[in-house]
Amino acid sequence: MNIHELKVGDTAATSKTISESDIYMFAGITGDFNPAHLDEISAGKTKFKHRIAHGMLSAGLISAVIGMKLPGPGTIYMGQDLRFLKPIYIGNTITAQCTVTKIILEKNRAELETVCRNEENEVVTTGTALVWVP
Amino acid sequence: MNIHELKVGDTAATSKTISESDIYMFAGITGDFNPAHLDEISAGKTKFKHRIAHGMLSAGLISAVIGMKLPGPGTIYMGQDLRFLKPIYIGNTITAQCTVTKIILEKNRAELETVCRNEENEVVTTGTALVWVP
Amino acid sequence: MNIHELKVGDTAATSKTISESDIYMFAGITGDFNPAHLDEISAGKTKFKHRIAHGMLSAGLISAVIGMKLPGPGTIYMGQDLRFLKPIYIGNTITAQCTVTKIILEKNRAELETVCRNEENEVVTTGTALVWVP
Amino acid sequence: MNIHELKVGDTAATSKTISESDIYMFAGITGDFNPAHLDEISAGKTKFKHRIAHGMLSAGLISAVIGMKLPGPGTIYMGQDLRFLKPIYIGNTITAQCTVTKIILEKNRAELETVCRNEENEVVTTGTALVWVP
Repeated sequence: MNIHELKVGDTAATSKTISESDIYMFAGITGDFNPAHLDEISAGKTKFKHRIAHGMLSAGLISAVIGMKLPGPGTIYMGQDLRFLKPIYIGNTITAQCTVTKIILEKNRAELETVCRNEENEVVTTGTALVWVP
Repeated sequence: MNIHELKVGDTAATSKTISESDIYMFAGITGDFNPAHLDEISAGKTKFKHRIAHGMLSAGLISAVIGMKLPGPGTIYMGQDLRFLKPIYIGNTITAQCTVTKIILEKNRAELETVCRNEENEVVTTGTALVWVP
Repeated sequence: MNIHELKVGDTAATSKTISESDIYMFAGITGDFNPAHLDEISAGKTKFKHRIAHGMLSAGLISAVIGMKLPGPGTIYMGQDLRFLKPIYIGNTITAQCTVTKIILEKNRAELETVCRNEENEVVTTGTALVWVP
Repeated sequence: MNIHELKVGDTAATSKTISESDIYMFAGITGDFNPAHLDEISAGKTKFKHRIAHGMLSAGLISAVIGMKLPGPGTIYMGQDLRFLKPIYIGNTITAQCTVTKIILEKNRAELETVCRNEENEVVTTGTALVWVP
């Protein structure tokens, strides 16, 4: 999609049930072996009670919406602000939704509100994406 | 590390040569199959000339430093602002470095400057992390 | 095995309990993030009630029997017809069985009946393989 | 997409540069450790000269188009006929293209021609898909 096709309010989403293997592979790629993510015994002693997904894994779902759907292929991802509000557990189904909030035509840029919710409709991750659009 | 051990200026880093399999597995976890990352022919027609890593993959390295080293296990990752400044290619060696810039003792919070550089010492990703420290 | 050793009626099989990670990695390789495979909430609203494996994952087990056992290494896989008859759920144990049904000596070719069954002995995938044998 | 939206001639495609890790992970999921795919020394002695991808991996890309784009989510994959015409090497960029060739309204079924081509536009895999469309 190019900058002229994009409209404020355009929205797109993707969903995935987060599996143990998602967390383990994410850990394997990044080296983030924090026991909160990979050690059920240690995680059981924290306030979260169980292993939780890396917050950045939910950001990856946002990246998928940006790169695949809205604005989609051709977009250059310039920045992303993130707030991790609630833990994501194994088995949670996360929906990442991106909505265009601002278009800066003369710079080919757009801003999107980026929100990840679980199956209870609770916001787990929120933020803003800044993109360059052809 | 607890909030009383942490000092402004503390710094830690981790490095990884980014492989094709890192990018492919990151795509596989997130569903971000943007041709810029997975299609050499299509990527060859962009200004980057070759497939590039997902920006969020460099953010995963930052997450690894935060969760493993500084402040390390026990930390709760509250937020991360990111700017993707330069592309990361297959074979680039990326160093993610995090440096404490602010400590808010009464709230058990700290801020860290987060920078990813390639082997030419060029900044590819920059930003700020906000964490809760026990 | 070469074409002269092969006999009509020869049979071989392999079995695997299909894990969530098998499905997630298959999605990760192919980009098939259909919610029927990766989104338990969305899949719950379909007639299958739960996430199901990609049909082509069962075909991969057939490919393993052909390439590893019968006719085994040296075989060139020329074609495969597939019918996906029943869903495969996480935790199902699938047995792929291949049986030689025809040998075409002068062309170094053979045909095999290829059947995948679950642990209840229900046929989930069926078809025919065409191979070149040294 | 439902059966009434679908038209003969509708077409969709997806592309991916096939990496060594794609082949290794496909082998890992299916158990197809045929040396033609994983053993460069042994593969070097065959007429293909190098390790080649599993034919069924190209079928996975077809499955991705069917499940994600055309007809897309909601589709039930009933069958797929495949002919493996040319080897796929590590580094080949494969485009899987699916085109609707027949619609059987009263049975909610459609047939698609499914073709995988490499970056030289050579057909590597061809076939026909049969799907149920809502």
